[in-house]
Amino acid sequence: MAATTSSYSITMRLHTAPDHGVVGAVATAISEAGGIVTGIDVAESSHERLVVDVTCSASDADHAQVLAQAVETVDDVEVHKLSDRTFLLHIGGKIEVASRVPLKTRDDLSMAYTPGVGRVSMALAENPDDVRRLTVKGNSVAVVTDGSAVLGLGNIGPGAALPVMEGKAALFKRFADIDAWPICLASQDTDEIVRAVEMIAPGFGGINLEDIAAPRCFEVERRLRESLDIPVFHDDQHGTAIVVLAALTNALRCVHKRLADVRIVVSGGGAAGTAIVGLLLAAGAVDVVVVDREGALCADDDDLSPAHRDLAAATNPRRVTGSLHDVLEGADVFVGVSAPGVLEAEWIRDMAADPVVFALANPDPEVDPAEADKYAAVVASGRSDYPNQINNVLAFPGVFRGLLDARAHHVTTDMLLRAAEAIALVVTDDELNPNFIIPTVFHPDVPKAVAAAIAGPQH
Amino acid sequence: MAATTSSYSITMRLHTAPDHGVVGAVATAISEAGGIVTGIDVAESSHERLVVDVTCSASDADHAQVLAQAVETVDDVEVHKLSDRTFLLHIGGKIEVASRVPLKTRDDLSMAYTPGVGRVSMALAENPDDVRRLTVKGNSVAVVTDGSAVLGLGNIGPGAALPVMEGKAALFKRFADIDAWPICLASQDTDEIVRAVEMIAPGFGGINLEDIAAPRCFEVERRLRESLDIPVFHDDQHGTAIVVLAALTNALRCVHKRLADVRIVVSGGGAAGTAIVGLLLAAGAVDVVVVDREGALCADDDDLSPAHRDLAAATNPRRVTGSLHDVLEGADVFVGVSAPGVLEAEWIRDMAADPVVFALANPDPEVDPAEADKYAAVVASGRSDYPNQINNVLAFPGVFRGLLDARAHHVTTDMLLRAAEAIALVVTDDELNPNFIIPTVFHPDVPKAVAAAIAGPQH
Repeated sequence: MAATTSSYSITMRLHTAPDHGVVGAVATAISEAGGIVTGIDVAESSHERLVVDVTCSASDADHAQVLAQAVETVDDVEVHKLSDRTFLLHIGGKIEVASRVPLKTRDDLSMAYTPGVGRVSMALAENPDDVRRLTVKGNSVAVVTDGSAVLGLGNIGPGAALPVMEGKAALFKRFADIDAWPICLASQDTDEIVRAVEMIAPGFGGINLEDIAAPRCFEVERRLRESLDIPVFHDDQHGTAIVVLAALTNALRCVHKRLADVRIVVSGGGAAGTAIVGLLLAAGAVDVVVVDREGALCADDDDLSPAHRDLAAATNPRRVTGSLHDVLEGADVFVGVSAPGVLEAEWIRDMAADPVVFALANPDPEVDPAEADKYAAVVASGRSDYPNQINNVLAFPGVFRGLLDARAHHVTTDMLLRAAEAIALVVTDDELNPNFIIPTVFHPDVPKAVAAAIAGPQH
Repeated sequence: MAATTSSYSITMRLHTAPDHGVVGAVATAISEAGGIVTGIDVAESSHERLVVDVTCSASDADHAQVLAQAVETVDDVEVHKLSDRTFLLHIGGKIEVASRVPLKTRDDLSMAYTPGVGRVSMALAENPDDVRRLTVKGNSVAVVTDGSAVLGLGNIGPGAALPVMEGKAALFKRFADIDAWPICLASQDTDEIVRAVEMIAPGFGGINLEDIAAPRCFEVERRLRESLDIPVFHDDQHGTAIVVLAALTNALRCVHKRLADVRIVVSGGGAAGTAIVGLLLAAGAVDVVVVDREGALCADDDDLSPAHRDLAAATNPRRVTGSLHDVLEGADVFVGVSAPGVLEAEWIRDMAADPVVFALANPDPEVDPAEADKYAAVVASGRSDYPNQINNVLAFPGVFRGLLDARAHHVTTDMLLRAAEAIALVVTDDELNPNFIIPTVFHPDVPKAVAAAIAGPQH
């Protein structure tokens, strides 16, 4: 059975006899079926019956049904309704707009809206540079998707992607006090995506591209960076790359190796893999080999797609070929941003001494972190139920905080390198160990450190 | 001197001698110069000096300078800094995003974001109808402009328009608990505007078009209504039309005339005028004449633009021609949505008995309401410093509240008629008089009444 996580938390409304022992029997039944009771509320109590809301964690949908059936077997208990807490949380959406100004009196209205606002608009028409200072543009980010590569779910479209973009907007506020709004686009045509973002750009201080499939995401980002005067950042690429570089920096500190010396194998030549490779090379890595479905990408191969040809040209200096298993031999570092289970734990034995394994496919990693831990010196994953979670939340809030604070027009590779270094340095020498190479997402210093790093060494 | 409104409220920071009488002398100086002191705060007090913030209302920028000069003449007083409260209010923008869900623990994150959100997205991919229920789409409106006809300021562009759209978003929240976000488009091309709005539509439950110049606004709205499955509403047109019809309904109650019987002259054949005419005709008006810069629009005129040709075809049954002054003779109602000063007050004498005059050009009406009041039975304007303010805030919050609550796909003329009737009926028979034909924007019943009316008679 998979780990029990609160993301599958359910609430059962039970009708029971008004019997003292019933609630205890229910808790026992849930526990014996592998669930974890996190709350019991009596909603109604009379001589005839009790109405009880029992909240508990299940591992997944099937397990939730198992728990409900287990409860039904208790005498005098009927499961009246089964609610999924994650769905309950989403009813009505996760974000809202709030007014930052009072609107109680006519006086308030005449300053925030007509006629007073007209003077502000006229001033901005004369001095466009003041738009960021006098409007929400100075603190706002559009979270833009076409719904083509949402989490690990694939091409589910813009409507189904909205809860993810909303969640991201909520995180922007929570971690960096940024006002982000989800923009879910009704087209997956590159030209149309680019033009739509250009069209809405005047109202935003930055563009966070999200969950756009490769290779389209590369062209969308490149063209928008050329045409817009606000920073454009595809989080699935660069956010991931920043956190991977931060974690790898500290992993190599643990095993006393230098980035320039290690052999790195990256599994997955998509959006994340391409950005990770680019940032690792910019940071000084030399021997990086990318493995995709067809095997190691090599400049000698004439059958590669344009995106993979670029990737191959920049990597694989020893021109190795073969399968993932083949190229892992002697490698110091494995970084997986590909698919569940592509790495067999035993293969790690063939790597160099003190191997580092990052298995980042979500929600199911390239190798079970617990299995990998038997062979590797340092293991990281995207999962919150193992040590060393590689989580983009460590990067994107601080990145945009820094960009907005600096009123930056562009994102540079130097900024990304500094952001990665800042995250790595939040872990002190005393704290650093193979089970703690990366701070938790709730570490209060992270967004500030990243923002300061983005703003630059002079700040 | 124009009326002193708080939209030109300033704060002067004064450095003065620590003398008891100084503050009183300052207040007197401001008052004698025609300003109104609304607040005095001592920011710093020592034996050497006082630092005092004096807030006062001026009529406009020039008047503010006059007030500052008047204060400088007081002995031992120096105006250190002069701040404009309306600009201070705008610093950092007027709206923000807030999270509706807790994000304190890892548990919270795993429900609002990954991995829990993935299940919600999968459910929405299977049941797209649930998007409105489980995301912000169910309560959100895009406030979309191209910046081409902002307030009375003209074509100032999308950046300078942003404070107005933000203000509108704040009003949406204040009056109808709607989450509206400003979308300022970087193009004034009809095809591009239409396509951009189509592209962003998946994330919104409604589209409020705003301050788009005529005739472009007609085509934009028509095409979006055809292509989108969420309601599209150009507030400058239909919001204005609703409030005008509501006010006219009550004005005619005051003078005991019926809409079907009166002669109506509409000055201005732009966006608002066209929508007002359409709604008046739908409500049963018969004799409506539109006057634009060239005079009365008449179906006999072959030189009209396409938009004006349509307007002429639907109006002017008596085929009258001539200037505004000409066609006013014998008219019962004047509705101005055109330009300052086009109506001379004396002309009202030539209208029928008990004439009704709505002078709605903003900020300066077609005729001074106080002058019009000498001749007309009922006068209304867009100004807050005279009785009977025709203000779109009476309509748009409730309109979208009703549309969102009903999960409506389209706006219909019947809805607009019902909304106007609902606003009119908020004024009871006991309250109704020529100085009170329309409720104030703060009347708590208005948004609810409009929303219920939009949702339909069955609700």
